[in-house]
Amino acid sequence: MRELDPFFKPQGIAVVGATDTEGKVGNVIVKKLLENKAEGKLEASVYPINPKIDEVENMKCYSSISDIKGELDLAVISIPAPKVPDTIEECGKNNVESAIIITGGFGELGKKGKKLEKEIKELGNEYGVRIIGPNCVGIFDSDNGVDTVFLPDDRMDRPGKGNTSFISQSGAFVATMLDWASMKDFGIAKTISYGNKIDVNDSEILHYLKNDNKTDVITMYIEGIDEGRSFVDSARKVSKEKPIIAVKSGKSEAGASAASSHTGSLAGSDKVYEAAFKQTGIIRADDFFHMFDLAKALEKQGPANGDNISIITDGGGAGVMATDACEEQGLNLAELSERTESKIREEFPPHAIVGNPTDVVGDTDKERYEIALRNMINDDNVDGIVIIILFQVPLLEDEVVDRVAEYANNTNKPVVACAMGGEHTKPHADKLEKLGVPTYPSPERAVRAMKGLVDYGNIKKGNEI
Amino acid sequence: MRELDPFFKPQGIAVVGATDTEGKVGNVIVKKLLENKAEGKLEASVYPINPKIDEVENMKCYSSISDIKGELDLAVISIPAPKVPDTIEECGKNNVESAIIITGGFGELGKKGKKLEKEIKELGNEYGVRIIGPNCVGIFDSDNGVDTVFLPDDRMDRPGKGNTSFISQSGAFVATMLDWASMKDFGIAKTISYGNKIDVNDSEILHYLKNDNKTDVITMYIEGIDEGRSFVDSARKVSKEKPIIAVKSGKSEAGASAASSHTGSLAGSDKVYEAAFKQTGIIRADDFFHMFDLAKALEKQGPANGDNISIITDGGGAGVMATDACEEQGLNLAELSERTESKIREEFPPHAIVGNPTDVVGDTDKERYEIALRNMINDDNVDGIVIIILFQVPLLEDEVVDRVAEYANNTNKPVVACAMGGEHTKPHADKLEKLGVPTYPSPERAVRAMKGLVDYGNIKKGNEI
Repeated sequence: MRELDPFFKPQGIAVVGATDTEGKVGNVIVKKLLENKAEGKLEASVYPINPKIDEVENMKCYSSISDIKGELDLAVISIPAPKVPDTIEECGKNNVESAIIITGGFGELGKKGKKLEKEIKELGNEYGVRIIGPNCVGIFDSDNGVDTVFLPDDRMDRPGKGNTSFISQSGAFVATMLDWASMKDFGIAKTISYGNKIDVNDSEILHYLKNDNKTDVITMYIEGIDEGRSFVDSARKVSKEKPIIAVKSGKSEAGASAASSHTGSLAGSDKVYEAAFKQTGIIRADDFFHMFDLAKALEKQGPANGDNISIITDGGGAGVMATDACEEQGLNLAELSERTESKIREEFPPHAIVGNPTDVVGDTDKERYEIALRNMINDDNVDGIVIIILFQVPLLEDEVVDRVAEYANNTNKPVVACAMGGEHTKPHADKLEKLGVPTYPSPERAVRAMKGLVDYGNIKKGNEI
Repeated sequence: MRELDPFFKPQGIAVVGATDTEGKVGNVIVKKLLENKAEGKLEASVYPINPKIDEVENMKCYSSISDIKGELDLAVISIPAPKVPDTIEECGKNNVESAIIITGGFGELGKKGKKLEKEIKELGNEYGVRIIGPNCVGIFDSDNGVDTVFLPDDRMDRPGKGNTSFISQSGAFVATMLDWASMKDFGIAKTISYGNKIDVNDSEILHYLKNDNKTDVITMYIEGIDEGRSFVDSARKVSKEKPIIAVKSGKSEAGASAASSHTGSLAGSDKVYEAAFKQTGIIRADDFFHMFDLAKALEKQGPANGDNISIITDGGGAGVMATDACEEQGLNLAELSERTESKIREEFPPHAIVGNPTDVVGDTDKERYEIALRNMINDDNVDGIVIIILFQVPLLEDEVVDRVAEYANNTNKPVVACAMGGEHTKPHADKLEKLGVPTYPSPERAVRAMKGLVDYGNIKKGNEI
C-alpha cells in the first residue's frame, strides 16, 4: 500500500481554495500547515491555490496546480462541489497522486451529488489520483504535522503524539475526539476521516496502519461498510498484528435509518456487523469512552493468555463491583491456588481477606498490595490482575504506585488498575498510568479494559471472541 | 422520624476516642468538626473524650460522657470494639440519644463480633440510644457541618452544598464519592454510611430524607437489605415524592459472595432486588457514573410525561448514536407532527435535515437550534428533548447556550444536553448545566439520563418501570 504514502508523507501539499478569510476552511488549513511547518513538525512544502488572489497568509498564492514547480503529491480541496472534478483532472495531469476532498454537498444530498461523486471517482481512476473524501476532515498526524482538520485551535485542541490511530467516517467525531484526547492527555498517532469514501476505504487504511510504525492500536468509528469482502479480508489480517477496536453506530433500525441520511451509507443489519467483527477479530466498543478505555489498555499491556482474572482491592464494595463486572463481561474469577492463598495469608494480618477478590482492607500499606500482586503473578491459575486502589485510605504510602508498576512491568500477565476519587487521587492515577499500568476511574471500566486484553489474547491465537 | 434528628441536627457532639495523634480517626474527626465550627458551618458544641489525656487540639478533653455539662445528643465513637458497649451504656445513662460507631471489627469478622453487635444493640434498645454503624464513616452534611468521615482533607476533598443525598453501606464509597463530587463540582446535601447497620437502617434514613428540605434526590449504594418488608414500604412512599436511585452490587453469584465477606450482609438473589426496585419505584443505576448522571438530571429537570423523545444535533454521527441509545433504553423516537416538520423546514436551509433526529448540520448557528427546539417543545408528540451540541463547529455562537437554557427553563418537557469535546467545550457545557440543563459528554449518557426522567414520570404516576 505504498499508494497511500502521498497522503501521509507528502513532499508538497497544495491547498485548493486557500483564502485569507478568517474561519474559512481554506484559511484554517493553510494556517495550521504553515504553523506546523514553522514549528518544524511539517516537512512538506505548502502551496496555497486560488486564482482570485495573489497572496494568502503573506505568501504567494498560485492560480492553479499547474503553476507549481516544486514536488507536489497531495491536494487538499476546499472549493464548491461542482468545481471539484476540474481540480481532480488538473491533479491527474500534473502527477499529483492524491487528493483529500474536504468539500461537502455530494452523495449525502441525493442523486445529483451522487452523480458528481461518480464523475470524480472516474476521473481519479483515469488519471491515477487517489481520493479521500469528499465531505470529510481528512488527516491529522501528530508526528509529521499533516493536519487538514479545518477547526481552528480556539475551537479544538490537538493532542500530542501517541500510539493509537483513529479512522472515522464522521468528521465531527474526529474533531470532538482530538479535542477530548488533548484534554485527557491521550496521545494520538493519526486520525483519518474519509466521509463519503468514494475511493480510499477502510480496508486500505487498515492495511496502511498495519504497516505504520507509529500506530500500535487502531480505533474506528463506523456507520456502514460497503466493501464487505475486502474489509473482512483486510481486518482479519490486520487484527492479528495490531488490535482493532470499533464503535459501530446505526445498531437499531431507527439508528440505521438516521445513519443513512447522514453519510448516505447503508448501515445494514447490525447482526451482520456483529458477526463480521467476531470473525475478523475486531473488538467492538459500546461508545467512545469504551473505545479509548480499550485502546489505552491495549497500548500499555500485552494480551492475556486466558480469562482467569484475579482482583486486589482496599475497598470491599469496589471488589464486589469488580466481581460483578467480571461475570457480566464473561470473565472467569480465577481460583487462586492453595499455595498462593497460604503464602498471602502468611504475610497478611488476620482481618485482611485472602481470596478472589483479595481485600487488603482500609488500613493497608503498600506491602499488602505487593504481597498480593507478587503471589498472584506467580500463580498459574491467574491470567490477568485487576488492582483497585482507593487512595483515600489513611496509611497507604504514595510509593504503592511505583511498586505496583514495577511488578506489572515485569510480568507477561496484564495488570490494569482502578483508582476512584477526585483531586487527591488524580496525580497518583496519572502517575500509575504513565508508568505503564492503564488506570480507570471505576471498577467496571477497569474490568471492561481487562476484557479487551483477554479478547485480544484470543484474537492473536485465532480464537473467535 | 424526629428520632433521627439528633444525628443530623445535634446540639452537642462528643467524640469518644479523641486524640492528638495525627491521622488517627479520633483526631481527624475532632479537627474537622472544630474547623467547621470555626468556619461557622457547625453550630453544635464539640466535646473530645479520652480518659488518658487532658487536652485535644488545645481544648479540654473530658474523661467521660458524664463529665459533660452542656447539651449533648450525639456521640461519635472511635474506640476499640470491646469497649463500645460500656460507652453505649454511658450514653444511655446520660440521655445521649444517638451514637455513630465508627469502629470496625464487629460482625464482619465473624461470630464474636456478631455477639458484640447484639450486646450493643440490646443496650441501645434498653437505654433508648439510636445507633448508626458500627464499621462506618457516619455522616457528612454540607449544610450544617456535621462531618464524621474520618479522611483528612489531604486524602479527600469535601464537595459544596447540593441537593442530592447519598446513602451507602460502604464507607469507602462515601469517601471516594465525596472526593469525586468535589472534583466534579457536584454539590451534595448529606451522605450517610451505616456500615453493619445494627439499628438505624435504610428504611428509616429514606424516610428521614423524604422530609429533609435540603434533599431533592436520594442516591444509594446497596450490598444487601435485611429489613425487606419495611424497606419496600418506605421506598414506595418516598419514591413518589423524591426520586431514589440505587446502585446494587453483588449482582452475580460471585459478587454476592464477595459482598457477604465484606459487610457480612446477605445479598440474596439479584432478581429479588430487581423486582423490589421496580415495585417500589427505585431507579436502578449500573454504576456510580450512571447514578450521578441520573441524579443530575432529576435535580435539574422535571419528569417526562411520556417516552416520546426527539433529538436535535449538529453532528450526524452523534445523532445516530443518540438514536441507537434511545432504542437500547426502550425510549420511543417521537414522530414529529407534520406541522412541526414543515414549520422547521420553512426556516431551515435545504441541506439541514428535518426529522428525528433533526440535524442542524455543521454550518449551524444558534438560530437553527432555537427553531428546532421551539417547534419540538410545541409538538404534543414530543415528551422530552435530547439536544446535542458539538461546539467545535465554526459558526456556532456562544449564546446558543443561553438560548437553549431559556427554552428549557420555560417548558415542562425535560431537556437534556450532550456536549462532546475537550477544553474548548468544557466552559460551554458547564455554563449550560449551571443554567439548568443537565449536560453529558456523550449522546449515550444524555439519553440514559433522559430515560431516568421518563422512568420518574412513570413512578410519579404509579406505573411500574
